[in-house]
Amino acid sequence: MKAESSQKVMAVIGCGVIGSGWVARALAAGMQVQAWDPNPEAITGLQNNIDTAWPALVRRGLAEGASRDHLHFSTDLDEVLEGADLVQENAPERLEIKQSLLASIDARVPNHVLIGSSTSGIKPSELQAQCHRAPGRVIVAHPFNPVYLLPLVELVGGQHTDPALMVSARAQYEQLGMRPLIVRREIEGHIADRLMEALWREALHLVNDGVATTEEVDAAIVYGAGLRWSLMGTFLTFHLAGGEGGMRHMLEQFGPALKQPWTRLEAPELTPELIERVASGSEFQAGGRSIATLEARRDRFLGELLEVVERYWPEQEGLGGRI
Amino acid sequence: MKAESSQKVMAVIGCGVIGSGWVARALAAGMQVQAWDPNPEAITGLQNNIDTAWPALVRRGLAEGASRDHLHFSTDLDEVLEGADLVQENAPERLEIKQSLLASIDARVPNHVLIGSSTSGIKPSELQAQCHRAPGRVIVAHPFNPVYLLPLVELVGGQHTDPALMVSARAQYEQLGMRPLIVRREIEGHIADRLMEALWREALHLVNDGVATTEEVDAAIVYGAGLRWSLMGTFLTFHLAGGEGGMRHMLEQFGPALKQPWTRLEAPELTPELIERVASGSEFQAGGRSIATLEARRDRFLGELLEVVERYWPEQEGLGGRI
Repeated sequence: MKAESSQKVMAVIGCGVIGSGWVARALAAGMQVQAWDPNPEAITGLQNNIDTAWPALVRRGLAEGASRDHLHFSTDLDEVLEGADLVQENAPERLEIKQSLLASIDARVPNHVLIGSSTSGIKPSELQAQCHRAPGRVIVAHPFNPVYLLPLVELVGGQHTDPALMVSARAQYEQLGMRPLIVRREIEGHIADRLMEALWREALHLVNDGVATTEEVDAAIVYGAGLRWSLMGTFLTFHLAGGEGGMRHMLEQFGPALKQPWTRLEAPELTPELIERVASGSEFQAGGRSIATLEARRDRFLGELLEVVERYWPEQEGLGGRI
Repeated sequence: MKAESSQKVMAVIGCGVIGSGWVARALAAGMQVQAWDPNPEAITGLQNNIDTAWPALVRRGLAEGASRDHLHFSTDLDEVLEGADLVQENAPERLEIKQSLLASIDARVPNHVLIGSSTSGIKPSELQAQCHRAPGRVIVAHPFNPVYLLPLVELVGGQHTDPALMVSARAQYEQLGMRPLIVRREIEGHIADRLMEALWREALHLVNDGVATTEEVDAAIVYGAGLRWSLMGTFLTFHLAGGEGGMRHMLEQFGPALKQPWTRLEAPELTPELIERVASGSEFQAGGRSIATLEARRDRFLGELLEVVERYWPEQEGLGGRI
């Protein structure tokens, strides 16, 4: 089915796990989706992935007028890009493939249409390099799997991007029900994947050194720190670990541990400037709430979370308490 | 109030944030707690911390006969250790302090009584070094804040520890409602803190380099990967990212990215042995369930989690959507 005039149209380029996730999210948000893949059989995988996603999206609540039928698949790039209000590229993570595909897209769509790339690691200026029409509107818009449920999308502009464009980009992804994070500076892996890669590499070392199995590493996350990480990141968590003194006290107490070989990743020097930046940032996040208030809030959340997650832990599935 | 004969007695040594957390957990589990701190005024902080913890513990459900009154505080170590079935040490994280305190405890309690240390980083063999009576029962039992809610406790034996002891240690911490993870080998930071430190150091670098504020780093965790980490660790997560091919496909596709500078932490070489260990480990965790089954389970969980966590996100507290 092609677009009705009142609906926003999203063109999704590449229909693997991530592309399919964008399709499902956009359909649930009430958009018309035009999906492209060079492989005509990709429609089967795409439909399977929507099958997986749809029950969760229905439980979350569909937007008015949302329908799985508002999807048009084609292997013809021109057909898919026609009338698109937003283009999302999900090609394999190889620079030459993305550069050439983005150049083709840039050449075909009007200058005002945003082109987001789902790249997890490539810098936007590299993505813009072969675009000649309006390279600045080619930005990184990096989502997280499953794209149809996780709200984070990292938005990163490149050297040709007007900062004002990022504000309108944020609004467009908010319309998809997401929580866009505008990244200040281009770096490989943006922000989230740098953090995830640090964890992943340390986990690989632990398995490689025979310290733990994959299962034990996962248990060490899931039953401990992982329970906090859906509410508080590493900074707010450590702000609470400092007791009444918050992050400032925590840095005093545990700062010296940064010199210890607790991971293979070397820590930065805790200069007065870095301490100030970290402590005042954490205090800003606390928003004037006392540690006791933050603790009570955390505990109410954790109680509710444990009620949910305990129903999903392995023994509920007859797998035994495996740690 | 001192112990009644039918109740298990836990001696908690040191009453800061972590010690208080153990006290609250043990009281809620229906135990008698004998708490020691060298500072007589520590009782005030301890009571405040129990005040914070108790409502959450009541919501979770107290054990039969559990009462806040089953607490006896003293600055006299002999008095607190008398009759203890389990001793938990929570002194400041300095080797000389812990060694001397643990030696005093070891000299005072019968050989069969387990002595756990909450140390986040010190190896158990170092903790045992000055214990002359029964050093093997001095082990690491490392919990996570808030101790009264998070179920993970890492158990690590030292060079004097009989492996059979670890099995009974596990049972004792299970009686406190915890999920003990027996760590195979002594390393600084055990398992969980190595992972958390890797994330923390990368986060500090991002702030230090001006790439992100503390708030942006936390948002990059909370709204994305953090939502998955209370259900699945990094291995099972990546097993699902691989589509039908699971972890094996994922390593093929993203293995080369390990050579890229996505974090300052160098990755291990992806040898055939490491690939096999990681892939077969992830497959064991999947427990014969297909990727589609795992995805459906993840999505049901995430839907329920989002319902909970959305009520706690900053805008619910008038702080605005801050990313």
